[in-house]
Amino acid sequence: ARFQSFLSGKSKQPDYDARDWLRTVVFAPRNIRGFENIRNPWLCVQFVTILWVLFTKIIEPKPLKTFSEQLSKVESVYLIMFSTLGFLIVFRLTRAAVRFWDCRQAWGNMVIYSRCVADALMVRAEEVQMDCNKSEEVTREIVAACDDCVAWCAAFAVSSKQFLRGIDALPKEELLGVLSEEDVNKLQKSPHQPMFCYSMMRRCSSRIYVTYRHSQKSEMREMHETIRDESGRSELSKYLQGLITQEGALERLRATKLPQIYVAHLRTFLILYCFSIPFVYAMNWGWATIPATAIATFALMGVEGAAMECEIPFDANRANHLRMDQYCETIVNSCALLAQWGGEEQAKKEL
Amino acid sequence: ARFQSFLSGKSKQPDYDARDWLRTVVFAPRNIRGFENIRNPWLCVQFVTILWVLFTKIIEPKPLKTFSEQLSKVESVYLIMFSTLGFLIVFRLTRAAVRFWDCRQAWGNMVIYSRCVADALMVRAEEVQMDCNKSEEVTREIVAACDDCVAWCAAFAVSSKQFLRGIDALPKEELLGVLSEEDVNKLQKSPHQPMFCYSMMRRCSSRIYVTYRHSQKSEMREMHETIRDESGRSELSKYLQGLITQEGALERLRATKLPQIYVAHLRTFLILYCFSIPFVYAMNWGWATIPATAIATFALMGVEGAAMECEIPFDANRANHLRMDQYCETIVNSCALLAQWGGEEQAKKEL
Amino acid sequence: ARFQSFLSGKSKQPDYDARDWLRTVVFAPRNIRGFENIRNPWLCVQFVTILWVLFTKIIEPKPLKTFSEQLSKVESVYLIMFSTLGFLIVFRLTRAAVRFWDCRQAWGNMVIYSRCVADALMVRAEEVQMDCNKSEEVTREIVAACDDCVAWCAAFAVSSKQFLRGIDALPKEELLGVLSEEDVNKLQKSPHQPMFCYSMMRRCSSRIYVTYRHSQKSEMREMHETIRDESGRSELSKYLQGLITQEGALERLRATKLPQIYVAHLRTFLILYCFSIPFVYAMNWGWATIPATAIATFALMGVEGAAMECEIPFDANRANHLRMDQYCETIVNSCALLAQWGGEEQAKKEL
Amino acid sequence: ARFQSFLSGKSKQPDYDARDWLRTVVFAPRNIRGFENIRNPWLCVQFVTILWVLFTKIIEPKPLKTFSEQLSKVESVYLIMFSTLGFLIVFRLTRAAVRFWDCRQAWGNMVIYSRCVADALMVRAEEVQMDCNKSEEVTREIVAACDDCVAWCAAFAVSSKQFLRGIDALPKEELLGVLSEEDVNKLQKSPHQPMFCYSMMRRCSSRIYVTYRHSQKSEMREMHETIRDESGRSELSKYLQGLITQEGALERLRATKLPQIYVAHLRTFLILYCFSIPFVYAMNWGWATIPATAIATFALMGVEGAAMECEIPFDANRANHLRMDQYCETIVNSCALLAQWGGEEQAKKEL
Amino acid sequence: ARFQSFLSGKSKQPDYDARDWLRTVVFAPRNIRGFENIRNPWLCVQFVTILWVLFTKIIEPKPLKTFSEQLSKVESVYLIMFSTLGFLIVFRLTRAAVRFWDCRQAWGNMVIYSRCVADALMVRAEEVQMDCNKSEEVTREIVAACDDCVAWCAAFAVSSKQFLRGIDALPKEELLGVLSEEDVNKLQKSPHQPMFCYSMMRRCSSRIYVTYRHSQKSEMREMHETIRDESGRSELSKYLQGLITQEGALERLRATKLPQIYVAHLRTFLILYCFSIPFVYAMNWGWATIPATAIATFALMGVEGAAMECEIPFDANRANHLRMDQYCETIVNSCALLAQWGGEEQAKKEL
Repeated sequence: ARFQSFLSGKSKQPDYDARDWLRTVVFAPRNIRGFENIRNPWLCVQFVTILWVLFTKIIEPKPLKTFSEQLSKVESVYLIMFSTLGFLIVFRLTRAAVRFWDCRQAWGNMVIYSRCVADALMVRAEEVQMDCNKSEEVTREIVAACDDCVAWCAAFAVSSKQFLRGIDALPKEELLGVLSEEDVNKLQKSPHQPMFCYSMMRRCSSRIYVTYRHSQKSEMREMHETIRDESGRSELSKYLQGLITQEGALERLRATKLPQIYVAHLRTFLILYCFSIPFVYAMNWGWATIPATAIATFALMGVEGAAMECEIPFDANRANHLRMDQYCETIVNSCALLAQWGGEEQAKKEL
Repeated sequence: ARFQSFLSGKSKQPDYDARDWLRTVVFAPRNIRGFENIRNPWLCVQFVTILWVLFTKIIEPKPLKTFSEQLSKVESVYLIMFSTLGFLIVFRLTRAAVRFWDCRQAWGNMVIYSRCVADALMVRAEEVQMDCNKSEEVTREIVAACDDCVAWCAAFAVSSKQFLRGIDALPKEELLGVLSEEDVNKLQKSPHQPMFCYSMMRRCSSRIYVTYRHSQKSEMREMHETIRDESGRSELSKYLQGLITQEGALERLRATKLPQIYVAHLRTFLILYCFSIPFVYAMNWGWATIPATAIATFALMGVEGAAMECEIPFDANRANHLRMDQYCETIVNSCALLAQWGGEEQAKKEL
Repeated sequence: ARFQSFLSGKSKQPDYDARDWLRTVVFAPRNIRGFENIRNPWLCVQFVTILWVLFTKIIEPKPLKTFSEQLSKVESVYLIMFSTLGFLIVFRLTRAAVRFWDCRQAWGNMVIYSRCVADALMVRAEEVQMDCNKSEEVTREIVAACDDCVAWCAAFAVSSKQFLRGIDALPKEELLGVLSEEDVNKLQKSPHQPMFCYSMMRRCSSRIYVTYRHSQKSEMREMHETIRDESGRSELSKYLQGLITQEGALERLRATKLPQIYVAHLRTFLILYCFSIPFVYAMNWGWATIPATAIATFALMGVEGAAMECEIPFDANRANHLRMDQYCETIVNSCALLAQWGGEEQAKKEL
Repeated sequence: ARFQSFLSGKSKQPDYDARDWLRTVVFAPRNIRGFENIRNPWLCVQFVTILWVLFTKIIEPKPLKTFSEQLSKVESVYLIMFSTLGFLIVFRLTRAAVRFWDCRQAWGNMVIYSRCVADALMVRAEEVQMDCNKSEEVTREIVAACDDCVAWCAAFAVSSKQFLRGIDALPKEELLGVLSEEDVNKLQKSPHQPMFCYSMMRRCSSRIYVTYRHSQKSEMREMHETIRDESGRSELSKYLQGLITQEGALERLRATKLPQIYVAHLRTFLILYCFSIPFVYAMNWGWATIPATAIATFALMGVEGAAMECEIPFDANRANHLRMDQYCETIVNSCALLAQWGGEEQAKKEL
Repeated sequence: ARFQSFLSGKSKQPDYDARDWLRTVVFAPRNIRGFENIRNPWLCVQFVTILWVLFTKIIEPKPLKTFSEQLSKVESVYLIMFSTLGFLIVFRLTRAAVRFWDCRQAWGNMVIYSRCVADALMVRAEEVQMDCNKSEEVTREIVAACDDCVAWCAAFAVSSKQFLRGIDALPKEELLGVLSEEDVNKLQKSPHQPMFCYSMMRRCSSRIYVTYRHSQKSEMREMHETIRDESGRSELSKYLQGLITQEGALERLRATKLPQIYVAHLRTFLILYCFSIPFVYAMNWGWATIPATAIATFALMGVEGAAMECEIPFDANRANHLRMDQYCETIVNSCALLAQWGGEEQAKKEL
């Protein structure tokens, strides 16, 4: 079921083959082009272009003609405006791509830290089980705490995904076999789910390395252990800080867009420029104005559209957005794999 | 009241919807465009343009005409100057945007570190309360110190915000229920408020991890604890250093602009260029010179205006500036949330 | 045999001499140019160009001529489209190169961390051997664990290389004398080979620093040792985290391409532009259209081809890709060298 | 006196108001424009321009005219050369600005680390004073060492400033009340003053955390303290490493310019280009050649001048350079402020 | 002698005065321009140009003329090709410069880490000498190990320099008074000299902090010392890792060039472009074609030449390459200075 859930999530954001020119150019799936981002302004420009060309071709009134000729002289001001526009477009495009990569990197680091957490805890569990000085009950408690911590780590990834998508409901099937239903419910109710998971991991860390207190001195604690435990705890603590830092970075990227003044200035002149093309060139190009304008404005607005598409890449249904379902699956699988190896290793040693 | 105060702060810096072309282009709120940054030079250029066009059109003296024709030949020098100008403008624009993001990142990291501080201290408080070896009085003191430290951490964010805005008066309602009135007054009086909060946090850290000294050996201290405490203290110390580093980075960004030589050179040639447009093109364009110059100069100067707007983005009333009220609210709420979870966890265990 | 295997791998990705213009321009090996990346679209453009030129030259129908003249007027829309295209191409080119360098850097760091691991463990082995308090059996066990850890570290590099190339089969001859055949088989079977090596290194670290538990208190453990061991372990742990972080970064780079919207938009207009060249210029250039179009489209598409070539540089057979065989050899050799020095040093001291 | 000295230093490098167009464009102070950097080549170009225009206008020999006409045809090679030139200029400009910011950042980090050092030591002094197990003499020694360390930290900033400016003489009034006269003299004599301060801070750190050795076991040292001290020491050690790293970065930036080949190539073609303007355009522009050349060459050379100005921004008298006096004052004041709070806190607790 | 050796190394790579236009433009030393990098292709282009111009001017056959006129029409394809070319050139130039700075930064960090190592060890030696609990023999051994470690640290820098230059022979006079002749010989024989130095430093670290084992329990070791020693050792270990990381980064930069596809594509079109200039423009420019082509091709190829020059800046004889002799001297001098201060401090305390 978990596999199914991740699969259906992944299928909405498929990978593509960069070597296949046909698929990326001619037969590119429609939803990949993000055309809906720019449909409205593009249609407006097309509408105005067609009207103007019909005007100049069919009605052809004299004053219109001189007005139009007057207009086409202003073409030289285009060079100036367009340079400015070009700088702004390229700047916005680069910003959006850098943001996309920052997000991807944060998720990549979450995978790495999750593996570190899982492996560190599996090694810890093994060491505890091999320690002859610990009572069986204490051993069992620590091992359980290790398992819980790895589970919350996987839940952290899933709940970060949901949080970034702005979906409050947890996908229970993705946490099936990871968290108990009770824990899932508790997590569901919390106002900030990733932070709750982080908080739970810290509590598990407490249970893993400070368990002796439960035993009320019945079992004399060795100094060695304290040194060892604090060393392990501070390592785990670094990994946990790594996780929360990545989640915080993603939260920050989701909450911040480019300053509005940049976007407003860029779009104002982009629109002005696009609307002016038919008026300036209609005299020269004749009927060819209609397709030429359509292509040129799509080329220009499409760049703005691509920047819009990639600015906050957390949507579940957009094909260009981050494949977060896949990253979560990697995290859950890595945790499971490491736990399994831990178990095998353990079984082998017990023989 | 706290909620109200943050809300009124946030409402001055609203988010925008990047998908809504109408709102970002045609109906963009006037204060978003930062037009006042460039109003004076723009109006001057417009004034000169109108005068010159009237001159050439109405009075039309011969010598003026030949002079004007002479001028329009120099157009080819434009290409050279404009390339230079373009490089400078794009450089300045990029610098301003990078600064904006550095500031945003510093605030984002402050949120993350605040959460780390709050969570680490809540876990510490829980562990102390579970420890049967500690006298009740010592336990109470430590828990109080933890709470104080979290409170100063929230106050650190609020006072950093005020400091960056250059406002000396603390917004008391934002710290309501966080700091006692006495502490707010002490903080108000200090010459460098964020540093005072940091200093207080370090004192709390001292009280949390070195309390035993008060007890004058009445309670024999275990070695285990010292090891544990130093490990916890050095973790907390890293988070505190993280906070002060972010605040220092913001202070640095506020205190440093682009070297004046860049700005002076850029603006000198921007102004020269804008003023020369009517003289060079008036012959060719006729009456169209007036709107064409208006649009072209606004396109160019508007980029410089956007750079000015985002260079030091700490103002409370500018719509493009950082939403610092919101970040402070996030910090205060995160601290509250973590403290609440700490309490619940504690209550549950006590049963 | 190991040397042979690495050599055959390296020979497919030879270095080049940047000072030799002839070799890099005229006699550049064919496989270096990555021409197959763009062959299909380039041939299409050539085919269309030749057809069109023949049409206009040989058949020369009148309506075609006026249509063609009409087309050549639209040349001015080129300036606009090409600027947009240029920004996208340069952006993609830069991204691909940055990715290439990120990959190279990750491998470079893996070399550095491997050396740190090997040296730290050799020093550890020496110190253990010099310690008179340790029983011979314990000493032998620790030294064996150190050797194992260094071996797994070399295996980590080799298996990362295979994993990144998507090859499941391990090259047994490259691990000859590094891992035992049994270990190679175990590694071969694991679903994620680099992670398995990492996991094994962590287990070795456990055996190196926590061995006392085997002795069931027969040998009273000194406190000094615990402090020393934890310090050594946490250092090793940092190096191991360094290794897994680099591998994770490489995995991330392999799994993520540029958002498809960028690639689709770029290629659509690149293809449109290339196909339009003959139609727009055939009137002017005559027969020269054919070679001119061939060269111009190769110049443009070649940049896209170079970006494709370097985007995911992990193939074993492409001359421009990362020389991963060489890096692995450096790692294996460095480990061997450090182990040898450790042995010599040891031998000298025993005298 | 200290205040006076810093003030006179600061007054040479005033801040500017970016919103004030008049001040930054028309009434910009002359020394801000760094005109002396490019005066010589600019005057040469002007001289040649005037001569050539006089030649073509007054003497007007026939062969000169045809030669001149021949020249103006070569204008099209300008496009190629200028693109190359433009790339180099923008590259150099960006490098200089990045260096400027790196320097600023290094100083900003020095402020942050200084605060960390000062606060950590004040907290340490308080804790020592509260510790009932320490003899009064030891307490006094440690507190004195803490004060010394903070003083050397302030001296580190001041001597770094002097070192970067290449001034060997220390400004004694700036260290008034910070270091004793004897220490100032010792510092003055050392061949590398910042490194000497760093070395002194390390010695203070030794005195703060390893004082017990003086007491020759008369006072039995508790284990707790050693753990605590080493933890404190390694924290302090990190801050000190931070300080020396920043100073080293600044030293590196001062010692390294752009590779000379870049500068030589850029300037050669900049000069060639500037000198060729009058020859190519004189026929077209007539008398207007003189002001047009003056403006265009100033625009181009001014960018190179700005890059020169900001490449090594450590001069005390240049208005565009780093306000190092101000940063030193911030460091000295921060140290004083933190020491004062430490004192107050102490006094309060003693009551 | 050491001073002499460094001086002769430094004199081949002199600094330059950026304010001196004459020296950097007209009288720039010939070896600074890196002209030999591009001599061959440049001469070819010149040869072809002269031949063609002679052809068109002297022989002037009719068919050649029409062919030439045909050619000059293709000029418009230049715009497209040159944009592509320009992007590639600027990309390559920037990459080379970034590499240059990365190398410089790595050396700068080596200076900083060397100082940290030297100072940390001097403080350690002082503390050991002040410790009354240590036997004189042990003290002497530790102090000797500290001195050895500092010596190997200086040797690390020198051998890194030689390694990067691909010179196997060590400059014995540069290590005079640093290492004993026996050690120099051992170092000379090792296959990877910097790694050997690093390995030796780790062994010294072992001798400094784990000496007690030699004494075979004759001297009861205090716990305090172990804690202190491990803290010191892990600090030293961080500095050593810093050193090896920098060396590894330099090794990586030396071993990796730009992917060959970029260089081959760039150069192919650069050469094509340069060769086509005379054919396209000869009709227009006449005899002026020869100098114009010479200048334009030098401007373009010179940028490629500068990129080649700075790509791997480790040569001893190229004026634009890194002044590694100077950095080594700084490291050796810093070590000597810190050792001397350590001695003085020690002498003073012994009084």
